[in-house]
Amino acid sequence: MTRERLSLYDTTLRDGQQTQGVQFSTQDKVRIATALDGLGIDYIEGGWPGANPTDSAFFEAAPRTRATMTAFGMTKRAGRSADNDEVLAAVMNANTQAVCLVGKSHDYHVETALGITLPENTENIRASITHIVAKGREALFDAEHFFDGYKANPSYALEAVKAAHEAGARWVVLCDTNGGTLPHEIAEIVRAVIAAGIPGDRLGIHCHNDTENAVAGSLAAVDAGVRQIQGTLNGLGERCGNANLTSLIPTLLLKEPYRSQFDTGIPEEKLKGLLKISRLLDEILNRVPMRQAPYVGASAFAHKAGLHASAILKDPSTYEHVDPSVVGNTRIIPMSNQAGQSNLRQRLADAGIEVPKDDPRLSRILERVKEREDEGYAYDSAQASFELLAREELGLLPDYFEVERYRVISERRRNAKGQVVVESEAVVTVQLRDGSKRTGYFKNEHPQDLHDDGPVNALWQALKTDLGPYQELIEDVRLTDFKVRITNGGTEAVTRVIIDFQDSQASRWSTVGVSPNIVDASFQALSDAMRWKLARDCEV
Amino acid sequence: MTRERLSLYDTTLRDGQQTQGVQFSTQDKVRIATALDGLGIDYIEGGWPGANPTDSAFFEAAPRTRATMTAFGMTKRAGRSADNDEVLAAVMNANTQAVCLVGKSHDYHVETALGITLPENTENIRASITHIVAKGREALFDAEHFFDGYKANPSYALEAVKAAHEAGARWVVLCDTNGGTLPHEIAEIVRAVIAAGIPGDRLGIHCHNDTENAVAGSLAAVDAGVRQIQGTLNGLGERCGNANLTSLIPTLLLKEPYRSQFDTGIPEEKLKGLLKISRLLDEILNRVPMRQAPYVGASAFAHKAGLHASAILKDPSTYEHVDPSVVGNTRIIPMSNQAGQSNLRQRLADAGIEVPKDDPRLSRILERVKEREDEGYAYDSAQASFELLAREELGLLPDYFEVERYRVISERRRNAKGQVVVESEAVVTVQLRDGSKRTGYFKNEHPQDLHDDGPVNALWQALKTDLGPYQELIEDVRLTDFKVRITNGGTEAVTRVIIDFQDSQASRWSTVGVSPNIVDASFQALSDAMRWKLARDCEV
Repeated sequence: MTRERLSLYDTTLRDGQQTQGVQFSTQDKVRIATALDGLGIDYIEGGWPGANPTDSAFFEAAPRTRATMTAFGMTKRAGRSADNDEVLAAVMNANTQAVCLVGKSHDYHVETALGITLPENTENIRASITHIVAKGREALFDAEHFFDGYKANPSYALEAVKAAHEAGARWVVLCDTNGGTLPHEIAEIVRAVIAAGIPGDRLGIHCHNDTENAVAGSLAAVDAGVRQIQGTLNGLGERCGNANLTSLIPTLLLKEPYRSQFDTGIPEEKLKGLLKISRLLDEILNRVPMRQAPYVGASAFAHKAGLHASAILKDPSTYEHVDPSVVGNTRIIPMSNQAGQSNLRQRLADAGIEVPKDDPRLSRILERVKEREDEGYAYDSAQASFELLAREELGLLPDYFEVERYRVISERRRNAKGQVVVESEAVVTVQLRDGSKRTGYFKNEHPQDLHDDGPVNALWQALKTDLGPYQELIEDVRLTDFKVRITNGGTEAVTRVIIDFQDSQASRWSTVGVSPNIVDASFQALSDAMRWKLARDCEV
Repeated sequence: MTRERLSLYDTTLRDGQQTQGVQFSTQDKVRIATALDGLGIDYIEGGWPGANPTDSAFFEAAPRTRATMTAFGMTKRAGRSADNDEVLAAVMNANTQAVCLVGKSHDYHVETALGITLPENTENIRASITHIVAKGREALFDAEHFFDGYKANPSYALEAVKAAHEAGARWVVLCDTNGGTLPHEIAEIVRAVIAAGIPGDRLGIHCHNDTENAVAGSLAAVDAGVRQIQGTLNGLGERCGNANLTSLIPTLLLKEPYRSQFDTGIPEEKLKGLLKISRLLDEILNRVPMRQAPYVGASAFAHKAGLHASAILKDPSTYEHVDPSVVGNTRIIPMSNQAGQSNLRQRLADAGIEVPKDDPRLSRILERVKEREDEGYAYDSAQASFELLAREELGLLPDYFEVERYRVISERRRNAKGQVVVESEAVVTVQLRDGSKRTGYFKNEHPQDLHDDGPVNALWQALKTDLGPYQELIEDVRLTDFKVRITNGGTEAVTRVIIDFQDSQASRWSTVGVSPNIVDASFQALSDAMRWKLARDCEV
């Protein structure tokens, strides 16, 4: 059976840019567009040329894509022809293959926001779409507030979209602009539009996530006959975001009935690259990736509950709805006080440590984990510290170094120029396995800014200064993230610090430290990081 | 028309605790349970007593609630009676009004994960529910993997849930445990269960967000006849989370058909408190609140696009699907326009500072706030720092003191007894308004524990030591909380510290500091706290 074509339209670069705090540079847009094209997206809405200067620049710089590059704009204003509307002219001048114009389809907006009559609005739509088609471009019409408009005045809403359709729009996109329409309503209204004469394969859906139903609303519209979905990567967008393509694409490719019924133009093997594209956007925006994001989140396949984790070991399909590797993700079974011995053995095996079943040291490790957790430690996000704890109990952790003493100073003062500077300075003394003592010292003599990177960084640099025979192994290790939490350790409040590390081989690991003293909590995490690296890489 | 009752069941404290990185203390659980009860939630699932030690402790400490306190557990194991299953006994011994047991309804899980026969499993369900009912408790049955189970072997799945129903379960909850079932499938299968003889008003739905459809799946189940929804605050939960009650509740109360058809037991005026409860959970977990969360997110009603913002000023309903104040949220309009200024005047008036409309200093304050926010400052949770910034622009901030210099040392060493101790020591020099210089010094000479409270506390104590004529006013000020976040200031990563303070009159206020150096970020917040107190209380 031949599958029907389902078109995917990405508006990350336009609607996504309307997110509070987001401002893409031209280079950012080119990177994202290239990634979207590589994935197999059908349409890339690059921006609103003329209205946003960076958008005009993007269209000039835009790469050649298999995807249909699309410029966004609005229908011509009343009182002038399409040819004489300079806002529309700027959109056309981007010379894209397709042009998508937003126009009013809700009578209240026509009369109140625009202050024109309904027939005038319909004519604006008709004339604008005709203009685009006459210029040989593909025309799309975004019917703004369509669902609210249909509920308020169904005959006018239909009049507006029919005008676009009859003027030759390839796609008429029904937009839930305020995000307040529920999926069952979307389905009902889509069916009414099809019944009124616009075929499903000319209809698109554009949802917003204000009730957390944008994905469901998009699927409901497809169920009802629509054949284009508009959305953004990572659900980026104004207010609560647009329909999340990162969640929709795997569902459309992997789940029935969509898998069998539709061809999205995205080959299944491209799905493996989806996580990377999602992270690329987060990186460009300097956003912390959403751990709990469907399919691509770091926790999307993290099984914590003891029951779940032991079943997974027998058969992953017991607790996973799809195989994580299909979307480029991995399974995680974190350690916590809910884990049983079988999880523990698996986790240790993954770290290259084999322990026989029913070995009494297993329950000692679990007890030790529990004791530590009661003190405020958390091993879910600090697997390396967990491994060290286990190695210690198993007698598999050589005593690479012991910290004798450290001292760190942070100081704010005025320099010779009278500027306020903040500097840190640290000294760390360790005793190595061979008995020798080493002292490392760090002070940032030439801080780039007048405020340096603080006491934790100073301790880290000092600790790394001289570890004798181990020096080579720890040179390339660097901190990539630092999380602090005040939590409870017994009856006291304590500080828990979790630090993420990376080395030049792109290995990543995380460690934890706990103390009422934030510096010491940090220092524990730093020491653990060193020891973990040595345990992994040291031959002696 | 009398509305039907729709029951809301919260599992933040149990399923929510299965989130990677989450570990609630007993006190945390009591706070959350109290807030849920205040909102009007029907059932609070407090945990799994016996399996998790902190959960047993919670049930002992649990507050009296109007909500039905519920203990979670699993159906009895094969080969023993319900009376002789010690895991079940521990659940019963929490003495809760209701008990919710999870059991297998998917044949594959019965045979593979449990390794027993289907009739044995059915008997385990029947006997366990009978046991709960015989002990006078309300019984709920969570049919694990129900939808996958129904697809694989519909007759067995139905047999399992009927056994629970016939044994007297008040609620049979259909669980989409892996989160992979789509809303239309949920609706279809729910209808089949009702057709097979379990009435909708005995059925519940428990969705997970692995395809971003947990909210939609819950609504679809209700549309199909289910009358209980299980979920969590903020969508907390394993992997991608549970159905998000924070998104569902406003939809159920405000949108048709739910508004007219159902009574959730939550009075509409309680909705205003929803945002606060959402933030409470984030605060307990030290999570950054999701800006784009539906209804309660900081950006949920943030209108950035120029078109939208000007239409909103004419009529908010043009771009908002609900009035933000109904859910305790506020509308945000970009700072640079007139609406931004009226928000600002209101916020200043709330702080007792009257500024006339169109005063040019208003836009300067807005600019200054924006500059600071671009550097990484955040004033949402640091009202006192915001007020100081405004006072400074308005010339209403006397120069109480200026910090000349500070120096703080943290040191780890061995004491005379050979124990590892961690100590901090701070010196702060300020110049007061009267021209005098004061130096404060602090070192904890007799630390209770071998680890003291760190450099921030040492600086705070030193700063408080000698402020001359202001001494009385700041003696009783103390830190109550300390939050650290790595964020972006321009192109660099910086540390943002927010500190909460309290005085003997029980006033509470919060300040913010930003720097790449965590000690200096903390110190800024400490200084702001002092100045705010002086600005408020100082007569000179």
